[in-house]
Amino acid sequence: MATPAAILIYADSASNTDQLYFSRINVPDPFISFGVGRKKYAVINALEFARVKRDSAFDEVLPLETYTQKAMERYGKFGRLSPAETIAVIAGEFGIKGFLVPEDFPASLYARLTILHGIKLEPANGPFFAAREIKTAAEAAAIKEGNRCAAAGIGAAEKVLKESKISAGKLVWKGKPLTSERLKMAIEIACLEAGSLSIGAIASGGDQACDPHNTGAGPLRANQLIVVDVFPRVQATGYHGDMTRTFLKGRPSEFQKRLVAAVREAQIAALKLIRAGVNGQVVHQAVNDTFTKHNFKTERTERGSVGFFHGTGHGLGLAVHEAPRVSTVDYVLKEGSVVTCEPGLYYPGAGKGGCRIEDVVQVTDGKPKMLSNFHYDWEIK
Amino acid sequence: MATPAAILIYADSASNTDQLYFSRINVPDPFISFGVGRKKYAVINALEFARVKRDSAFDEVLPLETYTQKAMERYGKFGRLSPAETIAVIAGEFGIKGFLVPEDFPASLYARLTILHGIKLEPANGPFFAAREIKTAAEAAAIKEGNRCAAAGIGAAEKVLKESKISAGKLVWKGKPLTSERLKMAIEIACLEAGSLSIGAIASGGDQACDPHNTGAGPLRANQLIVVDVFPRVQATGYHGDMTRTFLKGRPSEFQKRLVAAVREAQIAALKLIRAGVNGQVVHQAVNDTFTKHNFKTERTERGSVGFFHGTGHGLGLAVHEAPRVSTVDYVLKEGSVVTCEPGLYYPGAGKGGCRIEDVVQVTDGKPKMLSNFHYDWEIK
Repeated sequence: MATPAAILIYADSASNTDQLYFSRINVPDPFISFGVGRKKYAVINALEFARVKRDSAFDEVLPLETYTQKAMERYGKFGRLSPAETIAVIAGEFGIKGFLVPEDFPASLYARLTILHGIKLEPANGPFFAAREIKTAAEAAAIKEGNRCAAAGIGAAEKVLKESKISAGKLVWKGKPLTSERLKMAIEIACLEAGSLSIGAIASGGDQACDPHNTGAGPLRANQLIVVDVFPRVQATGYHGDMTRTFLKGRPSEFQKRLVAAVREAQIAALKLIRAGVNGQVVHQAVNDTFTKHNFKTERTERGSVGFFHGTGHGLGLAVHEAPRVSTVDYVLKEGSVVTCEPGLYYPGAGKGGCRIEDVVQVTDGKPKMLSNFHYDWEIK
Repeated sequence: MATPAAILIYADSASNTDQLYFSRINVPDPFISFGVGRKKYAVINALEFARVKRDSAFDEVLPLETYTQKAMERYGKFGRLSPAETIAVIAGEFGIKGFLVPEDFPASLYARLTILHGIKLEPANGPFFAAREIKTAAEAAAIKEGNRCAAAGIGAAEKVLKESKISAGKLVWKGKPLTSERLKMAIEIACLEAGSLSIGAIASGGDQACDPHNTGAGPLRANQLIVVDVFPRVQATGYHGDMTRTFLKGRPSEFQKRLVAAVREAQIAALKLIRAGVNGQVVHQAVNDTFTKHNFKTERTERGSVGFFHGTGHGLGLAVHEAPRVSTVDYVLKEGSVVTCEPGLYYPGAGKGGCRIEDVVQVTDGKPKMLSNFHYDWEIK
């Protein structure tokens, strides 16, 4: 089919970032939205109608009840109605024969609309709104605000580590063992107080930190690298920050010193290359080259991968992970795009550990613009 | 098509509750899972493989890389691969011709699998796992724990209101105006400290509380009803609590006293009826009857609906809203099901306001089992 003139979304905007990008309003229940040409429409129930009409980005807000009533009259005799029947009525009234839909459009509606109602739906192949990749000044400011919140979380973790004491190799805070859970709670409270919601923050030490998906559990120890990765969502805007720092309470080994220095050196090397027109592969290769230069090998072992085995960066915005990628993927960076820069090295074992340092920049035609700010001191006595 | 022997999910389990129910492990990125007969399979990348193999409910965990490699060999020449091609390879090896998929299965994969790969997919029509409605003892305990967290949040709000002073009709806490935002932060911090994450809690007063979707913004006032609705997710299990209490700081009007008394009376009437085999409509009607008896009318006005215009209850578990409904919908309650019981009345205007009282019970063949616990005192001097 030719490129459809119309787009269609059925999702809430509290969890679905395409619907939030399109609507610019937080609606907790799924609703129908569609676009024809440059005009944006929403179909909203009585409960939300006035608020959406007043506060959203829609050009026109249609009353859901009117269309479900029509759907009932037309299709009610065939059994249980779904939003597909309401969409079919609307498509008929607007003379729309087909829609482009997001990759995650619900299959149940897709099947009903295409099979029962003869409406052509084309699921997107990749991002639904290409424009989401390029951040406006307001979006960049919202992400910067997200990183102010992330820095508040990281600062809270640093403060806890500074206040902690070392007892028999373990960290003790306010008279009780300092666990990853307690450190995460300090981060989450600081993020809340800064105006954001932190979900899934990482505060993991030692071997746990060598698994980038392990958020950390149990007691934290002295002389181990502790990765603190915070990606809160600003409550007012829905945009995220995403920052990582790695700390160590006690005395680092020579290996740990070399490790942290290499990660920071790799980050600086990557940041120097990030610019519009440069392929993300080139940036990623600079990280690999830095690690190779310092003899930090990446390899698959029986216990899992060690070294550097994730991407250098990813797009950041309404979603924590969005376009583009800065990795082995062949992708040319665009001006206005916002990406993380987060090399890391991970070697389980005594006196070793994991380190990741992550900042956020906006791509320009020159030096990238920093959208995050927190110091790089990592040794805490 | 006949009932498929196999089911298929493609989703992460951090946000998708069907995937979490099926896998019993938190995986932040989307992955393929499927069931054949009583056997549960996951297809997991190297990063997550060991953890999922160790901690999940899957009978067998297959290495993603093996199957994407095969998909690449077979389909790579046709362009960009999607998880559909990996699923096609697996379906071929397992001799599966069709799958039942959830309503929210991604349309992009649905289209590829059905059109390009000739695999029959049948989207569910309603809940994907019927068994989710019936809670085991462990699930009921997890929900009770969720309500312990919710009660911690409500208790924190009550404490703030007790500590607040009244100045020129407005509430002042710790020397600054008490806003809905500050009250929500106190709730969210208490929920965190109790071991849960509260997203979207409501702390709204006056006319704002008459719109059940308004979470509250700006200064709170004396002598107004303040609805506090908290539905946190327990971090350890993913199960939710969901409780509401309504408070008033200052002196209630006679209307407000009658309103709150009627809501509590309606809740007690509803709780008396909740039992296996009873239609939710009957429970809902008891709430309506109580309000009618006390002359609280439900009607549509130009400014919106007033009175009682939402359901009496909903299922609660891994999702805040899940099967069953206790409302105008024709649905017979089942033993083991967990539902909220939350009548409310909403009348904007001076000396009036909104009130909702919500508790959670497990349906039995006798008296329902309370899974929430917090007192019903609402006047705060």
